[in-house]
Amino acid sequence: MHSFNELLEQFSDFFQTQKFPETPVALYDPCEYFLGIGGKRIRPICCLMGNELFGGLHPDVWNVAMAIELFHNFTLIHDDIMDKSDLRRGKVTVHKKYGEETAVLSGDVMLIIAYTYLNKIDASLLRQTMTLFNKTATEVCEGQQHDMDFEKRNDVQLSEYIEMITLKTSVLLAASLSMGAFLGGASNSSCEKIYDFGKNLGIGFQVQDDYLDAYGNQDKFGKVIGGDIRRNKKTFLMLYALEKANAEQKRALEALLDSDADDKVARVLDIFDQVGVKQWALDLKKQYTDKALNALDEIVVAEERKLPLRELTFQLLSRDV
Amino acid sequence: MHSFNELLEQFSDFFQTQKFPETPVALYDPCEYFLGIGGKRIRPICCLMGNELFGGLHPDVWNVAMAIELFHNFTLIHDDIMDKSDLRRGKVTVHKKYGEETAVLSGDVMLIIAYTYLNKIDASLLRQTMTLFNKTATEVCEGQQHDMDFEKRNDVQLSEYIEMITLKTSVLLAASLSMGAFLGGASNSSCEKIYDFGKNLGIGFQVQDDYLDAYGNQDKFGKVIGGDIRRNKKTFLMLYALEKANAEQKRALEALLDSDADDKVARVLDIFDQVGVKQWALDLKKQYTDKALNALDEIVVAEERKLPLRELTFQLLSRDV
Repeated sequence: MHSFNELLEQFSDFFQTQKFPETPVALYDPCEYFLGIGGKRIRPICCLMGNELFGGLHPDVWNVAMAIELFHNFTLIHDDIMDKSDLRRGKVTVHKKYGEETAVLSGDVMLIIAYTYLNKIDASLLRQTMTLFNKTATEVCEGQQHDMDFEKRNDVQLSEYIEMITLKTSVLLAASLSMGAFLGGASNSSCEKIYDFGKNLGIGFQVQDDYLDAYGNQDKFGKVIGGDIRRNKKTFLMLYALEKANAEQKRALEALLDSDADDKVARVLDIFDQVGVKQWALDLKKQYTDKALNALDEIVVAEERKLPLRELTFQLLSRDV
Repeated sequence: MHSFNELLEQFSDFFQTQKFPETPVALYDPCEYFLGIGGKRIRPICCLMGNELFGGLHPDVWNVAMAIELFHNFTLIHDDIMDKSDLRRGKVTVHKKYGEETAVLSGDVMLIIAYTYLNKIDASLLRQTMTLFNKTATEVCEGQQHDMDFEKRNDVQLSEYIEMITLKTSVLLAASLSMGAFLGGASNSSCEKIYDFGKNLGIGFQVQDDYLDAYGNQDKFGKVIGGDIRRNKKTFLMLYALEKANAEQKRALEALLDSDADDKVARVLDIFDQVGVKQWALDLKKQYTDKALNALDEIVVAEERKLPLRELTFQLLSRDV
């Protein structure tokens, strides 16, 4: 059994064996560039951890982990086009650097190469692995569409946001763990439980991310505090505030959403305080953390095998709050 | 055994069973719309024909044919974004009708659903089918990239153009036939020969398409004659003319490529005549047709089984020339 960091090191070695063809340069250079700007590799490592929960690392798990990481990067390249983002992980996005046409096509080919890795695994494991991979990939697209739809709406409900976040980010974490578990010989029931663990972990992580935007320690968070508020992003916190605010608070919030005042962040946070957003968000994160850990508890393997996943939960969900 | 039209009718019935999920509407409506505007369904029918060449239709061939047609439509949706095309098959393109963001994402999900169909086939056939599918899909992306690269270059060689066209359009026709043959139990050697047939058929078809733009009967061709010339498209004909022209003719052609004169088409055709482009193109088409039919000849099955493919060759390569 290995810790997250040990697995990350092993995966990084394997990841470096992935080479794109040399030509056409204009197609594959952007792929190389984007993979080179890093990322935390949480999803492929989750795949390895889900696998190790049930035994030694299966030789096929590396290819599935690679497919997952390539799929994830494909979604980022295309999301950045759709969201018109100029920066990703502090670097220029593919469409900004190489143009939109190339970003569309480089993303496409990266997705196809993801399937090429999937197709390397043992034939007896391929169909079931690919079934979950395809289902998850479809859901991630659906989540992204909901996210874009929500940008144009002013009546998004908290429950809709949770559904969107689940599709857009949590199911891939869940499926990564579950595909790893499946390759490790886990029962269907265990695969479902580790899926559930990952899904709740993912939602909890998003609650925390939204929380840190408002209440984080700027040095440790790594982003400017209040960025979501300034961009009128419909976060967990904002949606809760809009749902719980009284008529006067709601009018004030809506006016702030239309404004670009210098003290916008401070004034929104003031209303958040009046509505009790901070404690609610901490409670909500705890709910999802508990759900995740309960699902992990129910998996019947020696307790010590679960330690790396418990550590991961702690690392992901106990950032500076 | 069935003719192209009989298979088309059967495939159309199966194609109509394909339903996208109902939500998110903004994601799946564009998919429905695009599939609904038609297309000749040549590739999936080729898959069925490749299959029937070796016996009765295999139950899995429908899913592979569907995957091929969905893949093809995914490429068209994304190509239209990259090429900034407003119309496809006489209808408004997806990105023009729904916006670029949606067109990127709807194309993505269509590709994933293509893999979902592929994953329905018998587990014992999946890996080999998917190996060719992935290789082909990668090549189609590479072909599209070469095509975009060529737009920016003035020194494209005829041999490069043939390589680009092969990747962009012919390999999918070839692979469709070959995947069908594989499901039909054909030997590796027969799969390679039917692949070769399709590849040469595809290149021959493109030669003809380029030819008809210059020399076709406008009523039968269905497009405005000289459209490629007016848009300075680097076609088989133009590249040959540029390679074979003497210094004076080359200067005149290059001046015409920079001009927007009313008589541009007539003057380019005049130079084509001087260089002997018309006969060369007819000869080139014949070369590829012969190569295709030679490959078909070499496949060891009863001659009568090859009839539908011979008819298809005749239909595709004997348009009004």
